[in-house]
Amino acid sequence: MTTPPLATSILVLGPPLVFKAYETEFSEKFNFLKPWKTPIPLPQFIATHSANVGAIFCSAVSPVTAEIIQSLPELRFVLASSTGVNHIDLRECERRGIVVANAGSTFSDDVADMAVGLLIDVVKRISAGNRLVKARVWPCEGDYTIARNKLGGKRVGIVGLGNIGLHIATRLNAMGCIISYTSRTMKPHVTFPFYPAIHQLVANSDILVISCALTKQTHHMIDRDVMLILGKEGVIINVARGAIINEKELVECLVKGEIGGAGLDVFENEPNFPEELFGLDNIVLTPHHGAVTEEACRNLYDHICKNLDALLSNKPLECEVMNM
Amino acid sequence: MTTPPLATSILVLGPPLVFKAYETEFSEKFNFLKPWKTPIPLPQFIATHSANVGAIFCSAVSPVTAEIIQSLPELRFVLASSTGVNHIDLRECERRGIVVANAGSTFSDDVADMAVGLLIDVVKRISAGNRLVKARVWPCEGDYTIARNKLGGKRVGIVGLGNIGLHIATRLNAMGCIISYTSRTMKPHVTFPFYPAIHQLVANSDILVISCALTKQTHHMIDRDVMLILGKEGVIINVARGAIINEKELVECLVKGEIGGAGLDVFENEPNFPEELFGLDNIVLTPHHGAVTEEACRNLYDHICKNLDALLSNKPLECEVMNM
Repeated sequence: MTTPPLATSILVLGPPLVFKAYETEFSEKFNFLKPWKTPIPLPQFIATHSANVGAIFCSAVSPVTAEIIQSLPELRFVLASSTGVNHIDLRECERRGIVVANAGSTFSDDVADMAVGLLIDVVKRISAGNRLVKARVWPCEGDYTIARNKLGGKRVGIVGLGNIGLHIATRLNAMGCIISYTSRTMKPHVTFPFYPAIHQLVANSDILVISCALTKQTHHMIDRDVMLILGKEGVIINVARGAIINEKELVECLVKGEIGGAGLDVFENEPNFPEELFGLDNIVLTPHHGAVTEEACRNLYDHICKNLDALLSNKPLECEVMNM
Repeated sequence: MTTPPLATSILVLGPPLVFKAYETEFSEKFNFLKPWKTPIPLPQFIATHSANVGAIFCSAVSPVTAEIIQSLPELRFVLASSTGVNHIDLRECERRGIVVANAGSTFSDDVADMAVGLLIDVVKRISAGNRLVKARVWPCEGDYTIARNKLGGKRVGIVGLGNIGLHIATRLNAMGCIISYTSRTMKPHVTFPFYPAIHQLVANSDILVISCALTKQTHHMIDRDVMLILGKEGVIINVARGAIINEKELVECLVKGEIGGAGLDVFENEPNFPEELFGLDNIVLTPHHGAVTEEACRNLYDHICKNLDALLSNKPLECEVMNM
């Protein structure tokens, strides 16, 4: 257990779950500033320590605003515990030459598993069946026990074919789904059909799975128009970021039955949920925990230590976010 | 729409869900007896019609007992709407030379999807997360949001590698699980490791998925001994028949935390459930609806019509149950 000399301190924002899980191990290796442990308001805390902060380590829901960045003159590095970096002001980082790195593919397979799990759950009504059983209403009248649809043969449109999207495609392909995708660019070495525009993809899909980054271009990309094309039997799964979907319009479409169902691990204003959906059986909502497994947490800890070590010894970092 | 002449009538027991869904279409083609539509008790109904009954069409939960068979002297054929035929007295059928046919592989992929869905649900706590969200307790204290385990790399032991088991293996293999199996016999052309005995399989598994037939040999095969070998982190998924697991011992092991979780679509005394499990978050229970999708229902209707047509024209049947 070496304790490398630190020219500057690392400001932890959130804190990320991995930091809470490995706080002792982290603290033995690096010098962290933990604003949540003091009663001092964050801006004042930052002002007090501003000369010492060389790096920020942040959770997926802790904004790293231009204001915070500007108040830290020595900041050289922002490390996200998440894959998405939409909560970091990348433009300001670029302007200042601050390096941003994310979690890379640390939990791509976990998030893909979550997407597949949510999809099967919605299509085969697992949570709904579970609720029904525990409410003691089985056996019941009518056709409730008919799970809505077969998964095999369904056309699944994947929005964003990065690491996570590719893992999702592989899994659903093995289940007999017919995969196509849209992405910023057509992927080399990928044989699934590519549609450059979201509307083309949706017109050829029964199910949409969202696994792209949240950017200005993808913000509210899935709106009422897209949902109406998807249609009454259509299902939307989102394991990326809530704001890629216009949540207000999603709620309307679900409540009115204009789309068939949804499985959502992410929301537009976390931890707030659209409560209008709570009573609907064709909706499955999970608290943004797709990425969070014990093993991924351990891997993320290793990944972050490696990056902090690299930072301290001026070596190249892993998983720098290149595409701002 | 032809109405073939029927030498004998078909007694419907249950009735199967597919019969309810396609009753008009069925009734236009064949001559069915529908005991549930009269107030007459079943034995008396059967006695009244016994001379005319050439075939039985039964649901998965309608026992076709030796007594029923013996009261039908003209019976030549029992057609199950399910894959499992444990509810049919096969010995008595064999003795009488009565042909038994099941649903074949009509919904193998649907049941496999259900197994995978239940597995992801338990491992990644989807139903539990859904309940948590809808109970408005997110964000919450503690480590709840840590989904218990990563699916990739887990050793999955499949009990019974028929059509359904093979579909499950393919799906979980694509998710990075390490597959092995036990079965009556080692399967040719299958590269997954085979263990002849259940105890060997369990000793090499983190997760057990049950997809075998219920027979005298498999009844209560998964007992406390097996569960203790599986251990505290172990998960059991059952999409086959409830009585393959000793349900009383399963409940005990789950309540005491001697195994880690379970996803169950089938139960020992359906439609009764072990209510002791209702409060546990690591248990997902669905009302035996793995096989039931609209598409499978349509395919099953076609399959049954084909078999009844074959029966009436003395042609070979599909999906005869050979291995009694």
